[in-house]
Amino acid sequence: MEKLYARLTELFPEMVEIRRHLHAHPELSFEEVETPKYIANYHAALGHEVRTNVGGRGVVATLRGGRPGKTVALRADFDALPIQEENDVPYKSTVDGVMHACGHDGHTATLLVLAKALNEMKEEIEGTIVFIHQHAEEIAPGGAIAMIEDGCLEGVDVIFGTHLWAVTPYGHIEHRTGPFMAAADKFDIEIQGKGGHGAQPHLTKDAVVIGSQLVVNLQQLVSRAVNPLDAAVVTVGAFHAGHAFNVIADKAKLTGTVRTFKEEVRALLEREIEQLAQSTCKGVGASCKVHYQRGYPAVVNHEVETAFLAKVAKDIPGVTHVLEGDQQMGGEDFAYYLQHVKGTFFYTGAQDEQWEETYPHHHPKFQIKEEAMLVAANTLGGATLTYLREHVFQAK
Amino acid sequence: MEKLYARLTELFPEMVEIRRHLHAHPELSFEEVETPKYIANYHAALGHEVRTNVGGRGVVATLRGGRPGKTVALRADFDALPIQEENDVPYKSTVDGVMHACGHDGHTATLLVLAKALNEMKEEIEGTIVFIHQHAEEIAPGGAIAMIEDGCLEGVDVIFGTHLWAVTPYGHIEHRTGPFMAAADKFDIEIQGKGGHGAQPHLTKDAVVIGSQLVVNLQQLVSRAVNPLDAAVVTVGAFHAGHAFNVIADKAKLTGTVRTFKEEVRALLEREIEQLAQSTCKGVGASCKVHYQRGYPAVVNHEVETAFLAKVAKDIPGVTHVLEGDQQMGGEDFAYYLQHVKGTFFYTGAQDEQWEETYPHHHPKFQIKEEAMLVAANTLGGATLTYLREHVFQAK
Amino acid sequence: MEKLYARLTELFPEMVEIRRHLHAHPELSFEEVETPKYIANYHAALGHEVRTNVGGRGVVATLRGGRPGKTVALRADFDALPIQEENDVPYKSTVDGVMHACGHDGHTATLLVLAKALNEMKEEIEGTIVFIHQHAEEIAPGGAIAMIEDGCLEGVDVIFGTHLWAVTPYGHIEHRTGPFMAAADKFDIEIQGKGGHGAQPHLTKDAVVIGSQLVVNLQQLVSRAVNPLDAAVVTVGAFHAGHAFNVIADKAKLTGTVRTFKEEVRALLEREIEQLAQSTCKGVGASCKVHYQRGYPAVVNHEVETAFLAKVAKDIPGVTHVLEGDQQMGGEDFAYYLQHVKGTFFYTGAQDEQWEETYPHHHPKFQIKEEAMLVAANTLGGATLTYLREHVFQAK
Amino acid sequence: MEKLYARLTELFPEMVEIRRHLHAHPELSFEEVETPKYIANYHAALGHEVRTNVGGRGVVATLRGGRPGKTVALRADFDALPIQEENDVPYKSTVDGVMHACGHDGHTATLLVLAKALNEMKEEIEGTIVFIHQHAEEIAPGGAIAMIEDGCLEGVDVIFGTHLWAVTPYGHIEHRTGPFMAAADKFDIEIQGKGGHGAQPHLTKDAVVIGSQLVVNLQQLVSRAVNPLDAAVVTVGAFHAGHAFNVIADKAKLTGTVRTFKEEVRALLEREIEQLAQSTCKGVGASCKVHYQRGYPAVVNHEVETAFLAKVAKDIPGVTHVLEGDQQMGGEDFAYYLQHVKGTFFYTGAQDEQWEETYPHHHPKFQIKEEAMLVAANTLGGATLTYLREHVFQAK
Repeated sequence: MEKLYARLTELFPEMVEIRRHLHAHPELSFEEVETPKYIANYHAALGHEVRTNVGGRGVVATLRGGRPGKTVALRADFDALPIQEENDVPYKSTVDGVMHACGHDGHTATLLVLAKALNEMKEEIEGTIVFIHQHAEEIAPGGAIAMIEDGCLEGVDVIFGTHLWAVTPYGHIEHRTGPFMAAADKFDIEIQGKGGHGAQPHLTKDAVVIGSQLVVNLQQLVSRAVNPLDAAVVTVGAFHAGHAFNVIADKAKLTGTVRTFKEEVRALLEREIEQLAQSTCKGVGASCKVHYQRGYPAVVNHEVETAFLAKVAKDIPGVTHVLEGDQQMGGEDFAYYLQHVKGTFFYTGAQDEQWEETYPHHHPKFQIKEEAMLVAANTLGGATLTYLREHVFQAK
Repeated sequence: MEKLYARLTELFPEMVEIRRHLHAHPELSFEEVETPKYIANYHAALGHEVRTNVGGRGVVATLRGGRPGKTVALRADFDALPIQEENDVPYKSTVDGVMHACGHDGHTATLLVLAKALNEMKEEIEGTIVFIHQHAEEIAPGGAIAMIEDGCLEGVDVIFGTHLWAVTPYGHIEHRTGPFMAAADKFDIEIQGKGGHGAQPHLTKDAVVIGSQLVVNLQQLVSRAVNPLDAAVVTVGAFHAGHAFNVIADKAKLTGTVRTFKEEVRALLEREIEQLAQSTCKGVGASCKVHYQRGYPAVVNHEVETAFLAKVAKDIPGVTHVLEGDQQMGGEDFAYYLQHVKGTFFYTGAQDEQWEETYPHHHPKFQIKEEAMLVAANTLGGATLTYLREHVFQAK
Repeated sequence: MEKLYARLTELFPEMVEIRRHLHAHPELSFEEVETPKYIANYHAALGHEVRTNVGGRGVVATLRGGRPGKTVALRADFDALPIQEENDVPYKSTVDGVMHACGHDGHTATLLVLAKALNEMKEEIEGTIVFIHQHAEEIAPGGAIAMIEDGCLEGVDVIFGTHLWAVTPYGHIEHRTGPFMAAADKFDIEIQGKGGHGAQPHLTKDAVVIGSQLVVNLQQLVSRAVNPLDAAVVTVGAFHAGHAFNVIADKAKLTGTVRTFKEEVRALLEREIEQLAQSTCKGVGASCKVHYQRGYPAVVNHEVETAFLAKVAKDIPGVTHVLEGDQQMGGEDFAYYLQHVKGTFFYTGAQDEQWEETYPHHHPKFQIKEEAMLVAANTLGGATLTYLREHVFQAK
Repeated sequence: MEKLYARLTELFPEMVEIRRHLHAHPELSFEEVETPKYIANYHAALGHEVRTNVGGRGVVATLRGGRPGKTVALRADFDALPIQEENDVPYKSTVDGVMHACGHDGHTATLLVLAKALNEMKEEIEGTIVFIHQHAEEIAPGGAIAMIEDGCLEGVDVIFGTHLWAVTPYGHIEHRTGPFMAAADKFDIEIQGKGGHGAQPHLTKDAVVIGSQLVVNLQQLVSRAVNPLDAAVVTVGAFHAGHAFNVIADKAKLTGTVRTFKEEVRALLEREIEQLAQSTCKGVGASCKVHYQRGYPAVVNHEVETAFLAKVAKDIPGVTHVLEGDQQMGGEDFAYYLQHVKGTFFYTGAQDEQWEETYPHHHPKFQIKEEAMLVAANTLGGATLTYLREHVFQAK
C-alpha cells in the first residue's frame, strides 16, 4: 500500500499535466470525441484491455491482477460544461463557451495515473480492477445508464467513485451511508387557457392567473404533503406567458425541478404535481399537459462499503479529516451503478485554504486545488487494494 | 338638411374610392406621412383653410359658413395597425404587416366627403365647421392630446365624433351619456428577487413564486377593493421569469392593463397595485419597481349633447335604430376632446347582416360594410347643421 | 288627484300614529301575529274585502272602485328585525331585541292611510286597487313568493311598491328601469380534509390550507369570470376551521353570499363556485359539499311602468327631485311580484337634513323622517289613480 | 451490574403495581398534588434526601453512593393529560376526563423501583445518583425549566432520560445524536380588517380574504425559506373569522405551531411569520398582531453520551435491538436539561407485538407493554453504574 502511495506521489506531476491538457480541451456531454480517444490510448499503452464506445462514448479498461480475487470498479466522468471560462491560467479552455467547471478533468487525470501506478504492481494484485471512464454525467439521461446496459459492470463486485469537491477543504474525505445526493427530476407544465382582449376577462381563461395559482398551490406540496423529516424541493424555474400588456394570455409554460432522496417521496411528488396542475386548471375550465421526466435517482451509498471506505480513508496520506458529509440536493448519475452493485461515492475536498474566494461548481471561475487529485488517487487506490486483500482472505 | 343627405348619397362612390385608396396604403401611428398629405390636399382643393403638422402629424381644416354662428368640430382619426391583412379584396393593404383593421380609413373618407358636401352649401351655413383629422389614435399617448395643445379646439363650441362599429348592425346608432369607453392604463412590474440553484431555495428569493403570489393577490382588487357597481379590469397580460428548469429566477417581469370609467376608481387601482406589489415583495424580502402609465382617460359624453345627437339621429336617412349603447372597456383618445369642450362620441353600426362571420376590430379579417360611411356622414352632417341652426335661434 | 293629496295631508297625523304604534310593537319575520290582525281590522273597518293568512301571514285587502277599469296592486311589508333599538323616543320598541329598523312600520302606515283616503273617493275610482300587506320580507324565502302562490296577484295588471329610504334626502324619488336591487344568494361550503397532529402534515389533508386556497381562488370569479360591465359580489362572510394550535383541522366551514343583477351572471357564479370548490379540494385529495341557496332574485323594474312612475312623480306634492337611482347590491323580495306582473319599485327619500348623523338601515339607531310617509302615499296614490285613468282611456 | 438486573426483575411486580396505582389516579400538568407526595414518601422510605416543591411541584431525591465519584441524574415526568380514558382495564383512570395517555405513570414507576434497587447496593456505588421527578411535561412552559432554576441540576455531571414509546416494538432502544425531538412553538395572529355589509366589499378590509392569503403565503416558508435539508413545520391549526354569511368579517384569528430542530431555523421562521403577516395585511391596508411563543427547544442529544448509551444498551437484558431513531417533530422539555449538562434522551420500545392495533400517544386507548418498564429500568440503571465506574477510573 505504501508503495502505491509513494509511486502516486512521484507521478503527481503527470496527473497535473493530464488534467491541464484536458482542461484546455473540454468537450460537452454526449459530444466527447478526443477525450475518450485520449483515455483509450493511455490505457492501451499500459497494456490494459480497452473497450471504447461503451454505451455511446464511454471507455472501459481492465487490469487483471497477477492473483485471483474479486473485481473492483473505479469510475471517473470526463465531460465538460457549456460555460465560458473566466480563469486566467496558462491551461485555460481553448474552446469558446466550454469549460471543465466541475472537476471532471481532475477525475480523469486521477484515474488514469492511478491506473498506471496499479499497473506497475500488477503481479501483486489479488483480483481485477475495472476503470470506468464515463461520458456525459452533466446531462440527463447521462452516460452511466447506457454504459451499464452495455456491460460495464459485468463481473464487478464493488464500485468506488469520488468527486473532487471545491467547497470542502483539502484533506477532508466526506462519506455518508444511505441517501447522499438527491434524485433530480424535471417537469414541464403547459397550461392551455383561452386568450382574448385584456379588457374582456370573462371571455377568456387567463393563463397568467391559472399559472400563478398553480405556482402558489405547488408550495404546499413541500409544506404539507411531504413528511417534514424527508428533504424535498419543488422549484418552478421558469414561468412564461403572454406577449402584450393588453392581451390575455392563452398559454403559460412552467418548467421546474424536483429533488428528493426517497423513491416514495419522489413518486408522491410526481403524482401530486400532476393532480394539482390538472385540478387547478379544471377549476376554471382550462386544461394542461404535465410532462414529468425522471432524471438521475438519488445516490444511495451502501452501508458496509461506506463504513469500509471511511475506515480505509483514515490511514490515507494526505487525508486529515474523515467526516460524515451532509446530504446534497444536487444529482449525480453514479446513482445508477449503486443500483446494480455494492459501493460508495464520496467527496474529496479540493478547496485551497489560500483562496480568497471559493467559486462553486459550475461557476466560470471554478477551480480545484490540484493536490486533491493525489488524495483522491490514494484513497481510491488504497480502498481498492484493501478491498481485494480483505476479500481474498474471506474467500479462502 | 335633405339637400345634404341627397348630395352625400350622390358622393357615396367617392367615399368608397377614398376609403379603398387609404385602405391599400395604411400608415402606422406616429409614422403617417402620405395620409395627412392626401387629406390636406383634399381640403385645400375645396378652398378650406388648412393647418398641417398639428400636434405632430394632424391636419385641421376649417370651413367658414356664409352666416355667423357657433363652431362645430368633427373628428376623424387616420392611423392603421401593425397587423397583416388576411382579407382577399382588390384594395387589400399593399404594406406588409400594416392594415386599416379598425376602420379609420372609413372615418377619414367619411369626413372628407362630408366636408366636400358641406362646402358646396357653404353660403347657407350658420357658423363654422372644423374638420379635425387626427393621427395616432391607436397608440398612447395618442394624437389628440398634442393636437389640442396645438390649438385644434380653439373657438370650438361642440365636437362630434363617431366610430364605424363592425360588431353593431348596419343602421344602428349607439349613444350613451356619461362614461362610454374606458380609461386604459398600462403597468409594468419588475420584481427583483435573488436567483440561485434550483435545489437551494433557502439561499434565494424566488421571483417565480413572488410574481405568482402577486398575480393571485391582484385578483382581489376588482373583487374586494372596487365598488361592485363600478366596472373595472386589472389584467396581467404577460408574466416572464426564469430561463432554466433547475435555476431559481432572480427577476420576474409582469405587464398589464387597468380599465376603469371613473377617475376615483382609476386612482384607487393605481395606488393599490403599487401597494400590493411592494408589500408582496417585502413580505419575503424581495423588492420591485412598479411603473404605472396612464393611457387615455374614459370617454365621458356630455348629457345635453348626447341627448341632442340621439334626437337628431332618429331622423337621419339610413338610421333604423337609435339605442343606448353598452359601456365598452376599450379606450379611445376622443376622451381628451371631451375634457375641453362639450360633445359626444357615438357608434355607427357597420356590420353587414350578409356576413357569415363578424371579425372583431383589430382582427386580420376585419371589415366594414361601406354603406355605414354614408350613415355616419349623414349623422355627423345632420347633427352639425341642426346644432348650428338651433344655436343661431338661441343666439338671437 | 289634488283631492287625494289634500286628504292625505289631513290624515298625516293618523299615519304617524299608526307608524308609531307599530314601531313600539315590532314582530319578527314569519312570527307576525298582532301586526296582520291590526292591518286586517283597519281594512275591514273601511269595508274592504280582506283575506288573511295569505301565503302564511300576509293580508290582502281589495277596494273595488265605482267604475270599471284595470287593477292596481300596492305592496307594503310589515316585519321587523332582531335588533335592539337604541333610539330614545316615546314610541321606542317595547319588545326586547326586536326593532322596526328598516322602515316597514312606515310602509304599513302609509298604505293603510292611503287605503282610507282612496276608499273615501271610491265612487270615482275607475278600476280596482289591491293592498298587499306582506309579512317576512327580511328573511329568505320571504313572504312574497308564498303570497303570490296563494293568489295575491290574481287579476292584477300592475304593481307599485316603494321603500322609505333613510340614506336618500327627503323629497327625492329614485327610480330605475331594469335591474335595481340585486339577487342575494347564500352558499355554504363544508370542506372535508383529514385531521392530525400539527407536526405531521403529510398524514393529513389540512382543511385550513384548503379553505384558504379556496377563498383566494374565489376572488378570481369576480375579477376574471364575470363580465366587468356586470356588477357581482362573492363574499365569504365566515370561515371556521380547527380547535387547537397544534392539531391540523379536518374540516373547514365557509359561508357567504353572492349578489348579482342578471340571471346569467347568477347562474355562472353558482356553477363556478361549485366547480372551484370541488377542484380545489380534489387537487389535494380532499372533498367538499357546496350548498347554494338562491335568495331573492334581482328587482328588475319594467321599463314602461318605471317611466310612467317617474313622469307622475314630477307632479307629486312634496317631491322635489325625481332621479335615476344607483343600483343597490341589497336584496328585496318585491322582485317576485315583478316576475309575474308589470310594475316598478322605487325609493322615497326619508333622510332629514336636520340630522347630525344618518344611520343606515338595520342600524340600532335607524330612523326615518316621518313626512316621507306622506310623500310615499302621495306618490303611490297619484300613480294609482293616474294609471287607472290612462288605462280607461286606452280601453275605450 | 448483573446483580442490579436480577434485582429489578424480582421487583418488576412492584413496578407494575406502582404504575397501575398512578394510572388510576392521574393528575393534570401543574395540578399535581398526590403524585409528588407519593413519590416523596417512597424515596423518604428508602432514606434518600428528598426535596419537594422543586420548581413548583417537582421532587428531587438523592442517593449518595458509598464511594466517591461523579453525579448522574435520571429524570422521569409524572403528569397526565386531559383525555377521557377508553381502555377497559381494572386500573382504569378514576378521574373523569384525565388519563395517563403518554406513559408518564410508567416513567415514574420505573424510576422509583430503580431507585429502590440502586439503594440496596448503595455501598458499592461510586458517586451520586439524583432522581429528578418532574411535573408538567405536557404543557409549556413545562416543569423542567423551573426545576433547573430551582437547582435540580446542581452538581450533576450527566443526565439520562427515556420515554416509553408505544409505537416502537418492545425490546428496541432508539437513540440519536444531535437533534432528536423538535422545538415546538406556538403562534397567534390576529388580523384586524374592517367589517361591513357582504355586498359592499369596497368599504371593508375583508379579514377572511386577508387571513386566507396569509395561510397560503405561509406555505412558502417551508417550501422556499427553509433549507430543504432542515426539517421544519409551520401549521395553522385554527382559523376563525366572521359570524354571518352576508357580513364581511372585521377580524380573523389564526393560531398555529412551528416545529424545528435548529435554533437558526426557528429564529428564521419566527421572523418570517411576523414579516409575512405584517406585509400581507399592509398590502391591503389592514393590520395584525403576531404573538409568537417559544415552547420547548429541540432535544439535542450530546454525541459522547449518546454513543455511550448506545454501547451500554447492547448488553442490557431485554434489549434486542439498538437502533438510531428517526427524528420526531414532537416536543419534550427534557431539552432544557441538555442545555445545562451533558446527557442523552432515548426511547424504550413499549409496543406489544400481540396487539391488534397500536394507539398513538395521547389517544384515549393508549397503552404500554408493562415489561418495557423493566427494560427501561435496566438501561437507565446499567448506564448509570457503567458511567460512574468508567469515570472513577478516569478520575484516578
